[in-house]
Amino acid sequence: MRLRTLIRAALPVLLFVSAASAQLQRKQLPVPNVAGYRTLKCDFHMHTVFSDGMVWPVVRVLEAWRGGLDAISITDHDDYHPHDPHVSTDISEPYRLAQARAEELGILLIPGIEITKGEWHFNALFVTDFNSTKRLELAAALREARRQGAFVFWNHPGWKRPEQWFPEIAPLHAEGLFQGFELVNGRTVYAGGFAWMAEKNLAVFANTDIHAPMTESEEDGRAITLVFVRNVDSAGVREALAARRTVAWMGGELWGQEALLRGLWEGAVRLDTPALALTQKQRSAALRFRNSSALAFRLRPAGWPSWLSAREIEIKPMQAAAATVSLAADAPAGEQSLTLDFEVLNCHTAPGKNLVVRLPVRLKRL
Amino acid sequence: MRLRTLIRAALPVLLFVSAASAQLQRKQLPVPNVAGYRTLKCDFHMHTVFSDGMVWPVVRVLEAWRGGLDAISITDHDDYHPHDPHVSTDISEPYRLAQARAEELGILLIPGIEITKGEWHFNALFVTDFNSTKRLELAAALREARRQGAFVFWNHPGWKRPEQWFPEIAPLHAEGLFQGFELVNGRTVYAGGFAWMAEKNLAVFANTDIHAPMTESEEDGRAITLVFVRNVDSAGVREALAARRTVAWMGGELWGQEALLRGLWEGAVRLDTPALALTQKQRSAALRFRNSSALAFRLRPAGWPSWLSAREIEIKPMQAAAATVSLAADAPAGEQSLTLDFEVLNCHTAPGKNLVVRLPVRLKRL
Amino acid sequence: MRLRTLIRAALPVLLFVSAASAQLQRKQLPVPNVAGYRTLKCDFHMHTVFSDGMVWPVVRVLEAWRGGLDAISITDHDDYHPHDPHVSTDISEPYRLAQARAEELGILLIPGIEITKGEWHFNALFVTDFNSTKRLELAAALREARRQGAFVFWNHPGWKRPEQWFPEIAPLHAEGLFQGFELVNGRTVYAGGFAWMAEKNLAVFANTDIHAPMTESEEDGRAITLVFVRNVDSAGVREALAARRTVAWMGGELWGQEALLRGLWEGAVRLDTPALALTQKQRSAALRFRNSSALAFRLRPAGWPSWLSAREIEIKPMQAAAATVSLAADAPAGEQSLTLDFEVLNCHTAPGKNLVVRLPVRLKRL
Amino acid sequence: MRLRTLIRAALPVLLFVSAASAQLQRKQLPVPNVAGYRTLKCDFHMHTVFSDGMVWPVVRVLEAWRGGLDAISITDHDDYHPHDPHVSTDISEPYRLAQARAEELGILLIPGIEITKGEWHFNALFVTDFNSTKRLELAAALREARRQGAFVFWNHPGWKRPEQWFPEIAPLHAEGLFQGFELVNGRTVYAGGFAWMAEKNLAVFANTDIHAPMTESEEDGRAITLVFVRNVDSAGVREALAARRTVAWMGGELWGQEALLRGLWEGAVRLDTPALALTQKQRSAALRFRNSSALAFRLRPAGWPSWLSAREIEIKPMQAAAATVSLAADAPAGEQSLTLDFEVLNCHTAPGKNLVVRLPVRLKRL
Repeated sequence: MRLRTLIRAALPVLLFVSAASAQLQRKQLPVPNVAGYRTLKCDFHMHTVFSDGMVWPVVRVLEAWRGGLDAISITDHDDYHPHDPHVSTDISEPYRLAQARAEELGILLIPGIEITKGEWHFNALFVTDFNSTKRLELAAALREARRQGAFVFWNHPGWKRPEQWFPEIAPLHAEGLFQGFELVNGRTVYAGGFAWMAEKNLAVFANTDIHAPMTESEEDGRAITLVFVRNVDSAGVREALAARRTVAWMGGELWGQEALLRGLWEGAVRLDTPALALTQKQRSAALRFRNSSALAFRLRPAGWPSWLSAREIEIKPMQAAAATVSLAADAPAGEQSLTLDFEVLNCHTAPGKNLVVRLPVRLKRL
Repeated sequence: MRLRTLIRAALPVLLFVSAASAQLQRKQLPVPNVAGYRTLKCDFHMHTVFSDGMVWPVVRVLEAWRGGLDAISITDHDDYHPHDPHVSTDISEPYRLAQARAEELGILLIPGIEITKGEWHFNALFVTDFNSTKRLELAAALREARRQGAFVFWNHPGWKRPEQWFPEIAPLHAEGLFQGFELVNGRTVYAGGFAWMAEKNLAVFANTDIHAPMTESEEDGRAITLVFVRNVDSAGVREALAARRTVAWMGGELWGQEALLRGLWEGAVRLDTPALALTQKQRSAALRFRNSSALAFRLRPAGWPSWLSAREIEIKPMQAAAATVSLAADAPAGEQSLTLDFEVLNCHTAPGKNLVVRLPVRLKRL
Repeated sequence: MRLRTLIRAALPVLLFVSAASAQLQRKQLPVPNVAGYRTLKCDFHMHTVFSDGMVWPVVRVLEAWRGGLDAISITDHDDYHPHDPHVSTDISEPYRLAQARAEELGILLIPGIEITKGEWHFNALFVTDFNSTKRLELAAALREARRQGAFVFWNHPGWKRPEQWFPEIAPLHAEGLFQGFELVNGRTVYAGGFAWMAEKNLAVFANTDIHAPMTESEEDGRAITLVFVRNVDSAGVREALAARRTVAWMGGELWGQEALLRGLWEGAVRLDTPALALTQKQRSAALRFRNSSALAFRLRPAGWPSWLSAREIEIKPMQAAAATVSLAADAPAGEQSLTLDFEVLNCHTAPGKNLVVRLPVRLKRL
Repeated sequence: MRLRTLIRAALPVLLFVSAASAQLQRKQLPVPNVAGYRTLKCDFHMHTVFSDGMVWPVVRVLEAWRGGLDAISITDHDDYHPHDPHVSTDISEPYRLAQARAEELGILLIPGIEITKGEWHFNALFVTDFNSTKRLELAAALREARRQGAFVFWNHPGWKRPEQWFPEIAPLHAEGLFQGFELVNGRTVYAGGFAWMAEKNLAVFANTDIHAPMTESEEDGRAITLVFVRNVDSAGVREALAARRTVAWMGGELWGQEALLRGLWEGAVRLDTPALALTQKQRSAALRFRNSSALAFRLRPAGWPSWLSAREIEIKPMQAAAATVSLAADAPAGEQSLTLDFEVLNCHTAPGKNLVVRLPVRLKRL
């Protein structure tokens, strides 16, 4: 992709006429809609040169388009500005500067900031006054965000010390000052906090917290927060976050409420072989799955009859998979209507607990 | 992909128990259905060790599954057997040996042979007696194929000398001994014959004629014959070939009847920006296309108003593309309902002639 | 790569003239020479249609050239012929049929067979009478191989049951009937047998045991036996095997005698920063390594002074790596001559034991 | 590559301790040294947020390390600052901010600016006062650069109108105000100016002129200026530029003086088959080339005896190639000492003229 000419297109016409007809590519990253909701692929934690990031704001929009995202929030630090005095510290500018390109490309740009007080960082989305929390202490800043109607989540809860429900955090939550947390930040999973999703009624997030430019190889398996919206607009995202309808997705793994993960599975994968016909001497047959999504799934047979077995099955994004099921010598003759349970090893519904799916399969031995 | 264990699964159970649960992956290569027909991705020209090929027959089935094909025909030479006496010359064996795996994977296996008489090669599909044309001269062999009800097409019409409607070929066609021809063989396009599709009422084919194993890098842009069937079975393929409902696809290019190519375009690409809203001073906007297929498209504006322009647009497989349209200084104010024509440069409907598509776009200058 | 035309070049001239100037590509897979020996990249376990493989013999030579190998042995089963009667069971034919192409491409082709008696399989290299062990029982077959002067190694020692020094194996070794074993077969490491290299004085092997065509993605990290020869010819390979100068290489891991692994490291990697100069307030500096080989290395600091630290370092094939070393607050001022030890985590010299390398580094704080 | 943690390492220690041991990878991009000179891979035209670029200066250093470059110059516009007032317009800052990282990674950072006066852009390297040319008209700015001892080259000579020796340019050259020109800018080759290398005694350059972050896919075939230096330091680069010892490299093509291109070929490619032995009935043999460099070469036989032929040969970077040479029926028997000439189609020494190389080959027919 040649970003240069496109970026120039926003500049004075006389200088850059030739850039007028450049072109951008976007991978589509299909993820199924669930239960009547539209599924949006989002990243709510990104930086630019306006705090400690390495890129101009519009780059985040172009990266989002290229990578298949639907919504992003640029969240520069309120109180950390290592590029000062070379770069303005007005953190409303990234939103303002990126807005036109976001509209043109159909990327939802959510206003946001990172409230940054020592080691405690919280992202506030939907703020209306970007610079209002500067130099406030943590609780005061969070109260200011609440006053503006922001949705607030706690960032990288295990940064520098293992994640736990810290004494500094508990009162903030008790006061209703935040409603979500980053289960995933970059490539790091703060698994120790996964129970909070249910126990504390918090929305889970997977964000990149990206500072440098995003390379193509970093795009593979990058952190994405799936948000299940009624309407594809800013208010829709907000309603979905408030209702905790999010799934954290990174590196092929998914974390979220069981109903949402089940919906993703059901929308993504289809069994092409609901009926298997074998001759009497055949001892194996192929189960064929078709995955129309960018999600991956790993299945492990669970509770199968003793005469039937299969290994773990990996269903790759946008691929079909043919997995062999084997019959033991004592497999019953004739026709069977089976329900085969699979544990979906990469779909996590609670600490130590994965999604289980059931597939009806008819087995006929001729 | 590790074929070894899977292939072994067909062998005696005692020896290869551990192979029972291996797994194959398939890329899906989505191509839209057209006009009520199901679109099948096919390769009707392949070789094995039973003539001059380098692989065991089942490899062709496994390659077809991996590469996203729906139907294949293994077409070993009737009269060319360089591996004799090491390998049997019975060319019904490849079909017989590959059948079980094809059924298990849902690949349609069409019986076929390559009638091979000096430099004249014809593939006969749906033969019932594979070895019946051996040692016959060309016309006699083709008559024997017709007697069996075969569908016959002429292979690589420009092999060794530039393609033309050779005097050796004309009488065979006049006698009704073949109904199609390979416009594409491997990576070679016999463009000089494209007019025959309409003039001679022949079905076009794009086949690999593969002898060696197929590598993953060869899969990109490989020759595929698209067949538009009423029913996904052998009879369905036959009816579609008889009705000339085929498109040749290779290296991102498509050749076929206008209605079929138009159907592919319409099923594959959607314009996400039917309405463009610009401010008075804005001079450019993005047209966004979404391609849900494995087909690529290259568009060139055709017959646009003088005050509107765009460069060539490349819409890659499974990607979205954002292309800039530019307004000249004399662009009219207010709201316009435009119909934008594009020549689709990679969709060939006749020699020197490409598909043209029209897109309604509303343009509003605020 | 298009094998078709090349393969055809061996066929009658009249038919395939146009194939005369085709071209093959080879990745070079550089591995350093060690201690005056030339390092050869070898695979001594491969199958063709002449036993239970899926390809014609010359394919193994073309795959070897493409993949950067120097020497191979096609080792079809003596007593397992599932393609009989379609294919000849004469297992001298693969060697004979592949020989011309091997010579043309500079691939050393070592005569070989797989002695196959129930679950016990041994490869015999340098046999002179390929078909002589058929229908003999195991010990008799091995004696026949010894009579012909073959070098014999035990294949996949943990196939079907965990590897151990089985009672069936011990007497064969005591009788001197084999001199090596496959530590690696395909992607499987029989780590339980690694101690035998030293204890039983056996050469270690890493072979693919490939039956299907090799795909390009399977090439990455494939099993390779490194052989350290005096002369690049068949006799040279033989002398090196007899002297146990082999290293098993698969998936980025290396197993072998300490001196050989140290030689590979020293020939492959160079430290570009033997001296580090820091200002007094700087707390980190970059160690830069340059790897000119296809080998990878993973380093872990071992026994460093308490005020100096670094994370694990991954040095990828053909890449340079810049790794940060950090100084604690109590790091001494002035200039230091350090010797930094690293455990090379992927270089295994004995069960549970890895290569340790020492790097002299001067550290100057200004 | 995860730049984030590394970039953070330059920031206050308390905040980012955990980043201390991150790691960067570099592809090595080997290019041979020539005639006693060291070959440096350089890009002398890059932008940052300090003019109209999209990245923070240190990103250019990290990209250069990742991509295998040896020397770069960040050349922000003197008189074009669309990010003002959000970002400082002091164009000495990019150099100052990138310096520490460049030293740590061993990247030569050459001070530079882009003198930008309407459509006329010139890069001045080795400037000492970065901001001195602001608001000067073109000739005055170039004189100021000369006063500082800068090396100056003309950028993208065909930007907006076809390249020619414009009347605006001729007097500047006559006055000795520039010593080179960009034959290649980004992916654009200004071929119409290639004759100026010899006619006007100008150094040729191939630079990216990059504004956006560089993606990994853009790295393939990117513009690079090869500079042949006596010493690997800033003065060495300067001496080499003054002596016009440069080669422009982009997209697999090379442009430069014949002696330099010949040196690159000789250092990169080795013929592994200086002698070919054929039987009397053999009609073809393989020429094998080994390329140890990141350069590609395409060869076409030139002036061969009528009985000997070969197709075009493509020798890919870091690969070996086996190309078939064919003998006609009237090829002489016995032993021949041949000198085979090849035109190197991608090595351009003058307009319409390519490098020709000669290979001695002995041919023996047994």
